[in-house]
Amino acid sequence: MAVGFVGIGAMGEPMARCLLRGGYRVFACAHRNRERLERILAEGAVEAGTPAEVATHSSAVITCVPDAPQVEEAIFGPHGLLAGAATPLSFIDMSTISPLATRGIARRLIERGHRFIDAPVSGGPVRAAQGNLTIMVGAQAKDFKALVPILKTMGTPTHVGPVGMGETVKLTNQILIANIMLANAEALSFARKSGADSETVRAVLATATGANYLLEEWLPKTWFANDFAGGFALDLLRKDLSAALEAARAMNLPMPASAFAYQLYTAQSAKGDGADDYSAVAKLYDQFV
Amino acid sequence: MAVGFVGIGAMGEPMARCLLRGGYRVFACAHRNRERLERILAEGAVEAGTPAEVATHSSAVITCVPDAPQVEEAIFGPHGLLAGAATPLSFIDMSTISPLATRGIARRLIERGHRFIDAPVSGGPVRAAQGNLTIMVGAQAKDFKALVPILKTMGTPTHVGPVGMGETVKLTNQILIANIMLANAEALSFARKSGADSETVRAVLATATGANYLLEEWLPKTWFANDFAGGFALDLLRKDLSAALEAARAMNLPMPASAFAYQLYTAQSAKGDGADDYSAVAKLYDQFV
Repeated sequence: MAVGFVGIGAMGEPMARCLLRGGYRVFACAHRNRERLERILAEGAVEAGTPAEVATHSSAVITCVPDAPQVEEAIFGPHGLLAGAATPLSFIDMSTISPLATRGIARRLIERGHRFIDAPVSGGPVRAAQGNLTIMVGAQAKDFKALVPILKTMGTPTHVGPVGMGETVKLTNQILIANIMLANAEALSFARKSGADSETVRAVLATATGANYLLEEWLPKTWFANDFAGGFALDLLRKDLSAALEAARAMNLPMPASAFAYQLYTAQSAKGDGADDYSAVAKLYDQFV
Repeated sequence: MAVGFVGIGAMGEPMARCLLRGGYRVFACAHRNRERLERILAEGAVEAGTPAEVATHSSAVITCVPDAPQVEEAIFGPHGLLAGAATPLSFIDMSTISPLATRGIARRLIERGHRFIDAPVSGGPVRAAQGNLTIMVGAQAKDFKALVPILKTMGTPTHVGPVGMGETVKLTNQILIANIMLANAEALSFARKSGADSETVRAVLATATGANYLLEEWLPKTWFANDFAGGFALDLLRKDLSAALEAARAMNLPMPASAFAYQLYTAQSAKGDGADDYSAVAKLYDQFV
């Protein structure tokens, strides 16, 4: 079976590799980073000139791009997937976007006789490479059942509700990580300013009630290693937080902590760290420590 | 060896039980809750009329009370531990208080020829009962070595630095839990308002980057069970946050997220939930969900 992939980026590259390992034929087209595509082609993927051409060869297509406008372009653009799609084509959007946008895109595809599921992921490039992502799927039950083997090559898919609910649960995770990363940054800065040894503190707190994944698994590779390259870009987190705040606004739900966190991440982005890992928000405190 | 215990409260009761299980003779005096003392006496502890009398019988004394004024009273009050202490006596303060207060108390005791270590704990009553607390110890190396067998009956002690550093690391944990609990409350409210099934969301996020101890171990017993009795009182968390903000102020360190969180916990306390578990802060969102 042939699966198309649009968005061979930091996540898309290892995810496409998982599909190849799982025995799928993969059709992909150039993304911003030609090197990533070349590596995938060298491992057996086939290049297509445009998303439309990707769709022509595929019975399911995956989009994994930064935000809703890019999903729109990849599907509905002049050379988009839809232009080359035989009916019915299965669309799997693994981008993190607003669930409002997701439901709009799904409606337009379903009207045309296609299938659509949203399947955003959590785990970052390291777990993507291991085929060990958490995959949150919004779908009709029959579509989930039909497409779950594709998703299983990349991680553990869970059916969390109808179309759009995958994005909702993903944004729920992003609300968590935005606030928890800030909590870690503020707490560790407090400890450091007090003269505590950061590594001792990290080790002890891993066994205390403040224990969290980011402190145990993420910060040792970024803040503790003083290496903010790679990881998950601060500006992408801001985009996700913005989508969560937009969805909350549409529901009349106040999210005071996340709105406040958004402002602090924006301050750090304004200082030039938007492309760095979002743990760079800890630098806000460095000037005082 | 005889160990004195002042503060047989929600934490002190199971901690004193650990000492008895560990083979220590335990001397204790009445706290606010007479029933807790009675249970400990029935298991072999010996009642003393005052902290002074506790000290007379003990070669090490533990204080585990709500805040610095209560530690002051228990040690330096007219019937306090110091009044009955033979020199040298080992003081172990397991309360969570400001490290500034800790260092002042330690200085006054050491001047008088006594020993002092701070050894606050994390884990809550359930882990206290299991003898499985995280214990963060600020001490001189020789005092840590001398007193670690006592602490080991209650959990896992780690020597994190000189006197006061135990409190610093404990407050670091409290900064984390205050912000992480709020993050969980806001994120889960977002998911619920969006129509997601809370239990499904919890299970999926336990494998995602937002995974945290409070979501996995604490909220199932409180917010998910709609049972906010017991646990860790919201007003005690406010007291800890206040101590952390005071210590930060003394160091000229801004803590914007924690200062903001403090205001939200205060709002919920003002609604009458100060004695409930601090996860009751989630009720701030309930009115909108």
